[in-house]
Amino acid sequence: MEKQFEDFRHQLDESGSVRERIRSVVMEMEAAARLVHSSLLLVHQSLPVLEVLEKTKLQIEVIKGLFGRLAEILRERPDQYYRYHGDWRSETQTVVSLLAFLHWLETGSLLMHTEAEKKLGLDSSEFGLDIEDYLIGLCFMSNELPRYVVNQVTAGDYDCPRKVLKFLTDLHAAFRMLNLRNDFLRKKFDGMKYDLRRVEEVYYDVKIRGLASTESTQDETAQA
Amino acid sequence: MEKQFEDFRHQLDESGSVRERIRSVVMEMEAAARLVHSSLLLVHQSLPVLEVLEKTKLQIEVIKGLFGRLAEILRERPDQYYRYHGDWRSETQTVVSLLAFLHWLETGSLLMHTEAEKKLGLDSSEFGLDIEDYLIGLCFMSNELPRYVVNQVTAGDYDCPRKVLKFLTDLHAAFRMLNLRNDFLRKKFDGMKYDLRRVEEVYYDVKIRGLASTESTQDETAQA
Amino acid sequence: MEKQFEDFRHQLDESGSVRERIRSVVMEMEAAARLVHSSLLLVHQSLPVLEVLEKTKLQIEVIKGLFGRLAEILRERPDQYYRYHGDWRSETQTVVSLLAFLHWLETGSLLMHTEAEKKLGLDSSEFGLDIEDYLIGLCFMSNELPRYVVNQVTAGDYDCPRKVLKFLTDLHAAFRMLNLRNDFLRKKFDGMKYDLRRVEEVYYDVKIRGLASTESTQDETAQA
Amino acid sequence: MEKQFEDFRHQLDESGSVRERIRSVVMEMEAAARLVHSSLLLVHQSLPVLEVLEKTKLQIEVIKGLFGRLAEILRERPDQYYRYHGDWRSETQTVVSLLAFLHWLETGSLLMHTEAEKKLGLDSSEFGLDIEDYLIGLCFMSNELPRYVVNQVTAGDYDCPRKVLKFLTDLHAAFRMLNLRNDFLRKKFDGMKYDLRRVEEVYYDVKIRGLASTESTQDETAQA
Repeated sequence: MEKQFEDFRHQLDESGSVRERIRSVVMEMEAAARLVHSSLLLVHQSLPVLEVLEKTKLQIEVIKGLFGRLAEILRERPDQYYRYHGDWRSETQTVVSLLAFLHWLETGSLLMHTEAEKKLGLDSSEFGLDIEDYLIGLCFMSNELPRYVVNQVTAGDYDCPRKVLKFLTDLHAAFRMLNLRNDFLRKKFDGMKYDLRRVEEVYYDVKIRGLASTESTQDETAQA
Repeated sequence: MEKQFEDFRHQLDESGSVRERIRSVVMEMEAAARLVHSSLLLVHQSLPVLEVLEKTKLQIEVIKGLFGRLAEILRERPDQYYRYHGDWRSETQTVVSLLAFLHWLETGSLLMHTEAEKKLGLDSSEFGLDIEDYLIGLCFMSNELPRYVVNQVTAGDYDCPRKVLKFLTDLHAAFRMLNLRNDFLRKKFDGMKYDLRRVEEVYYDVKIRGLASTESTQDETAQA
Repeated sequence: MEKQFEDFRHQLDESGSVRERIRSVVMEMEAAARLVHSSLLLVHQSLPVLEVLEKTKLQIEVIKGLFGRLAEILRERPDQYYRYHGDWRSETQTVVSLLAFLHWLETGSLLMHTEAEKKLGLDSSEFGLDIEDYLIGLCFMSNELPRYVVNQVTAGDYDCPRKVLKFLTDLHAAFRMLNLRNDFLRKKFDGMKYDLRRVEEVYYDVKIRGLASTESTQDETAQA
Repeated sequence: MEKQFEDFRHQLDESGSVRERIRSVVMEMEAAARLVHSSLLLVHQSLPVLEVLEKTKLQIEVIKGLFGRLAEILRERPDQYYRYHGDWRSETQTVVSLLAFLHWLETGSLLMHTEAEKKLGLDSSEFGLDIEDYLIGLCFMSNELPRYVVNQVTAGDYDCPRKVLKFLTDLHAAFRMLNLRNDFLRKKFDGMKYDLRRVEEVYYDVKIRGLASTESTQDETAQA
């Protein structure tokens, strides 16, 4: 019996040490993500997008390096990704939400899963980005959009609601293709419709007051 | 005593197996309803109604087939419809709300209870559509209307609020004829008045800005 | 639309009136069950069992009559037993627990499901005693036994723990044959083990202090 | 975007189907474990150990077969053991607690981790028995011991407390070698000391009343 528990002690200690190492990386990741978030918040104050992107670059490189360290820790335990997954997923979701928002600001399109992995230096065959984490990250990004739209309209950008609405509608429709289990992702997705409605209402306010630019209105009519 | 519990075990196992079979059908129904909902959401983006109807046809046939399977499971247990009713009612309510919305888009009128049963291939004498489920489904449909009105006005259809308001006012009045118990249906119906108010507000916005077309205004005055 | 809601009104009113009639019967049943319970409590004060049984007879006849009225209300709605089942099940469970306790006091054995139906004048083919209600009633009875044992020992009946323990152990083992769903019955059954442990402890106390009569000890040894 | 979500749908559906298959195996496992438990409960009524072991044999083979099915489901997903681990771990812990109790009854010694794996037909290199599940199972077994001791003393086996106390003391000491994180296992282990105290109390009762046999007392003194 003693021999067995001696073995267990080594194994539990080893797995405890893995957790400690992961925890230390994750704490740095949380700090870096917080800095990215701070910079990103400046878009609400209408700082030019390019400046915001510039400000976040460095920290995103830091985060990429941290994912590299996570991958390294897990490298000797190739089948234990999901054993420790719970220890880094929350921060990963936050990082995805930030990257996806930045990407949308830059390109107007959705950050794809493979693009997210590339930005984070991840390799699916080894240490990938879990699909559910990616999807939850997109839901978190969606939560930021109503506020962004409100602030942009306040700052005089009357075309913003139309663009965000188009993006969010497409994203929402894409999510609806999935058969989600009754879990955390499902709950987060259910919240996305409130973001959508809020953006619709802002767009409605802009239209009803004749503030949407003629050009974009024609644009939209053409699309419809 | 052992004999009795042995019997109970068989009976509980049998009823457990009925529930499992129902559950499996209901999960498919949920997935099909989600696809119908996805297509239906396109009306908010001003997709022509005929295209939306076309897109939902197939899935509605799937749902009809699933109700056929439920009816089959219950066929050997003719007096146990209400024993298992709780296991499919939530999905049934969702399905009714979708059908009623589609029907309103197509005809401008309310989907009647018998019409809903017919669309779902149900036969009241055997496996019918519970009245309360039908009514709750209508309440759920009502919840979708304010958003629809907002998006239609945004897209330039200024006559939509008047039409929806007329429909919703009639529906609300019809519900008021019922003596509802203090239960889930009552709670859902109580929520309908908020939908009504929101639609009234949109209608007000449109009128006050002189956006409602003269014709439709006269139309409405004539009807009033 | 109006015609349909007019019909619904009649149907909802009718089902509301069924519920009212059931409710009125159930209130009387609750009162009668309370009187039975009051009389039954006297066994904790060591009133002779025969006297207790005598005191409860009348009210049990009242309860039987009330079940007759329930059956009558449901007679014209043969397939709707489970539609209204929730309206009387809690009281039915209480009644079963009382009858089962009285029966055990009288005979030392478990009140079988068919015996319970007979005592309540129920006919399975028409208006029966739901198995889960019967089983939950037995769990409620089990909850009363630890207190009964403690009071009997206090009153000097040192053989009572052994008898109750035997009964409860058999009952618990019988329940364990069932594959219970994760529901109310399961939760109630899970609580039965605490009753069992408490009775075991009382029995242990009696044995350890040499209070159990020699005869019953031999008896038990013989049984083992 | 649609292509990506189409891919996700397939992946989520596939993982949902894996979960469904696991769930179905786990439900059977729960039922089989319940039957083993029912038989095992008979030791509390002093049924000879050999008879109890005989009664459980068949169901343990069933459980072994079910673990084989789990292993098969996971075989094509070699690195995803921990992804789905949460879906079967609770039942695995129960099974370990039952096996460990049976083993102790049979041999008086602790069921080792490798022995448990062998009994369940598990192969560490493929689908093993997680160490924490094994340890939690031992804690659950420990919870059963105070009740067992109480019932054995009641039935006249006054040497039982000494034997159980020795076993539990050793087990508790072995656990204390481990550096447990502040998690479920730690909480369960913390509960073990209450089992230990209760067994100590029973042993004390037996000794103070001079019920422990002289021989075993010497025995114990010699060991101490």
